[in-house]
Amino acid sequence: MIEKTVRVCVPGTSANCGPGFDTLGVACTIYNELELTLLADEHLEIAVTGEGAGNIPGDARNIVWRSIRMLLRRAHVEEQYRGACIRMKNGIPLSRGLGSSAAAIVAGLKAANLILDNRFSRRELLQMATDLEGHPDNVAPAIFGGFTISVLHEGHPECFSFLPKLPLRLVVAVPSFPLSTRAARNVLPAEVPLKDAVFNVSRAALLVAALSKGNVHFLQHAFEDALHQPYRAKLIPGMYEVFQAAKEAGALGVSMSGAGPCLIAFTLEHAEEIGDAMVQTFGRYDVEARALMLKVDDRGVRIKK
Amino acid sequence: MIEKTVRVCVPGTSANCGPGFDTLGVACTIYNELELTLLADEHLEIAVTGEGAGNIPGDARNIVWRSIRMLLRRAHVEEQYRGACIRMKNGIPLSRGLGSSAAAIVAGLKAANLILDNRFSRRELLQMATDLEGHPDNVAPAIFGGFTISVLHEGHPECFSFLPKLPLRLVVAVPSFPLSTRAARNVLPAEVPLKDAVFNVSRAALLVAALSKGNVHFLQHAFEDALHQPYRAKLIPGMYEVFQAAKEAGALGVSMSGAGPCLIAFTLEHAEEIGDAMVQTFGRYDVEARALMLKVDDRGVRIKK
Repeated sequence: MIEKTVRVCVPGTSANCGPGFDTLGVACTIYNELELTLLADEHLEIAVTGEGAGNIPGDARNIVWRSIRMLLRRAHVEEQYRGACIRMKNGIPLSRGLGSSAAAIVAGLKAANLILDNRFSRRELLQMATDLEGHPDNVAPAIFGGFTISVLHEGHPECFSFLPKLPLRLVVAVPSFPLSTRAARNVLPAEVPLKDAVFNVSRAALLVAALSKGNVHFLQHAFEDALHQPYRAKLIPGMYEVFQAAKEAGALGVSMSGAGPCLIAFTLEHAEEIGDAMVQTFGRYDVEARALMLKVDDRGVRIKK
Repeated sequence: MIEKTVRVCVPGTSANCGPGFDTLGVACTIYNELELTLLADEHLEIAVTGEGAGNIPGDARNIVWRSIRMLLRRAHVEEQYRGACIRMKNGIPLSRGLGSSAAAIVAGLKAANLILDNRFSRRELLQMATDLEGHPDNVAPAIFGGFTISVLHEGHPECFSFLPKLPLRLVVAVPSFPLSTRAARNVLPAEVPLKDAVFNVSRAALLVAALSKGNVHFLQHAFEDALHQPYRAKLIPGMYEVFQAAKEAGALGVSMSGAGPCLIAFTLEHAEEIGDAMVQTFGRYDVEARALMLKVDDRGVRIKK
C-alpha cells in the first residue's frame, strides 16, 4: 500500500442567521486546513497550530480522527488504515459559534473520502457529518458553501444551498469567552407562543427570498428572531446593545452566530465601522472582543493545492 | 362631475401554502369581476351574479362598498361620491378558503383608486386592505399576484411577491360546506412545541427557495406543516386521507387552503387525476366536493378591458 497525503480547506460557518433557527446556515471566508496521511499501522499523530491549539485532544478522542474512522468504517476499509498523521492549521475560533466542530468533522470526512477516490457523494458526507454533529446546521454550509437551508426528514438531512445575489459582508464580533452549545440549548423552552413561530416563519421566508433575489429593501426586517435569541440574551452581556450599535453603524441586520457568543452583522457597506461599533459596545459591558471582516464562502470544503 | 365607470378583475387566493402559516399566499386563476360607477347622490345599487349571489349583502354592510368608502375617506373625497352602482360577477367560492373576502376588498379599493386616477400606490392599497381584512395573507397576493411573503412590522405589512420558476398547477378540492375563518382560528393553541416551530421555519424557507429557483426535488418535502393543520384537521372530515390520495396520484404536496375547507394540491402534472382522487376520497367521508384546475395568477388585481 502506498501512503497518500491529501490537504483540504474547510470554511467556518454561522448557523441560524437571524430567523432561521436550526435551519439556515452560511459558510464564511475563515478557514481550517487539514493535511491527512492515512497509515496502515495503528499509529496516530496529531499536530495542531492556530486557534485552540492547546485545547484540542491529540489522541483517539480527536473529532477529526473520529470522523475519518467513521468514513473508513462505512467504506469497510478500517482494517487497511489503522493510523494517521494529522496536521491541522486552524483559523476558526473554538466554541464561539463559528462551527469549529463542524469544520473538523467535514475536513476529516472530506480528506478521508479523497484518499478513497471520492467513494461517497456530498449527500452521503452530509448524512455522516449530521450523524456525528447531531444536526446539519453547520456541517451543511461547511460542505456546500453559500447559504444553506437544512431540513430533517425522518432523520435524514436535506440541504438546499444557494448564493446571495448581493455582495454581502459578514462582520463577526468574537468575544473572548467561550459558550457551549449545550448550555445555550438548555435555556430554551419546550414550547413557544404561536405568534413567535409565525414571526420566524415569515422572516425566514422573507430572508431567503430577499437573499436569493438580491433585494436590499426587504433585508432590513428579515434578520429578526423571536425563537431563540430572547432566551439566550442573558448568556451574552450587552447583546441587544451590540445589535443596536451595529445597525446604527449601517448593518442591514444582526444576530447571534449559532448559539453564540459570536454576534454577526450582515451588511453591504461600512463593515469596518460596524466592527468597531460592535467591539466598543461589547467593551462597555466588560466583554473583550475582536472583529472579523468576512464574506460568504461560495464553495464549501475543498482540496487545498 | 362626470360619472366614470371602471371594471376590474381580481384573483382568488390561497393562504398558508403548507408551512407558510400566516405568511405565504398565492394568487390563483379564478376571478371575481367588479364594475363600479361612483355617484354623487347617496344612492347604492348592488347587483351580484355567480358564487354566493344570494348570501352577499346588497346594502351598506357590503364589503366591496365599505372598502370603496375607506379609500374615498383616505382621499378626502367621500362627500363628492356618496353613492355607487356596483355590479359583481363572482367566480370565487364564498367561505371556502379561497380569499373571497380579500378579493372583494381588493376589487373595491382598486376600482375606486382607478376612478381617482391611481392616487394611491399598491403599497398603500396593501395597507388599507390589511386594515380592512385584519391580516395581509390573502390581500397581498390578490394585489400583487404570484406567491407572496407577508411580514407585519409594527402593524405595517411588507409584502414580497415572486413567481415560481416552475409551471405549477394548483388543484383545489372545494367541499360543499363553508367554514368560517374565526371558527378555524379558535381551535389553534396559544403555544406550540419549539420543534414544531422549527419544522415550519425550515420548510417555509425550503419552499420559497425551491419555488424561486425552480427545483422540483426539494418541493417534495416542502409543503408539510406542523403549526395549524394538525389542530384544524378535525374540522374537515377525511383531510389527511385526501392529502394521501393526492400525493399517490402524483401531487408534489398538499395543504389546507387558508383555514379550509378547500384543500389544495401543488403539482406539475396529472392535475385531472389528482382532482378526481381528492373528490373521490372526500366522497368516502360523505363530503360532497368538486375540483378546480388552476394555475398561478401572475398579475394580481387588474383593469378589466
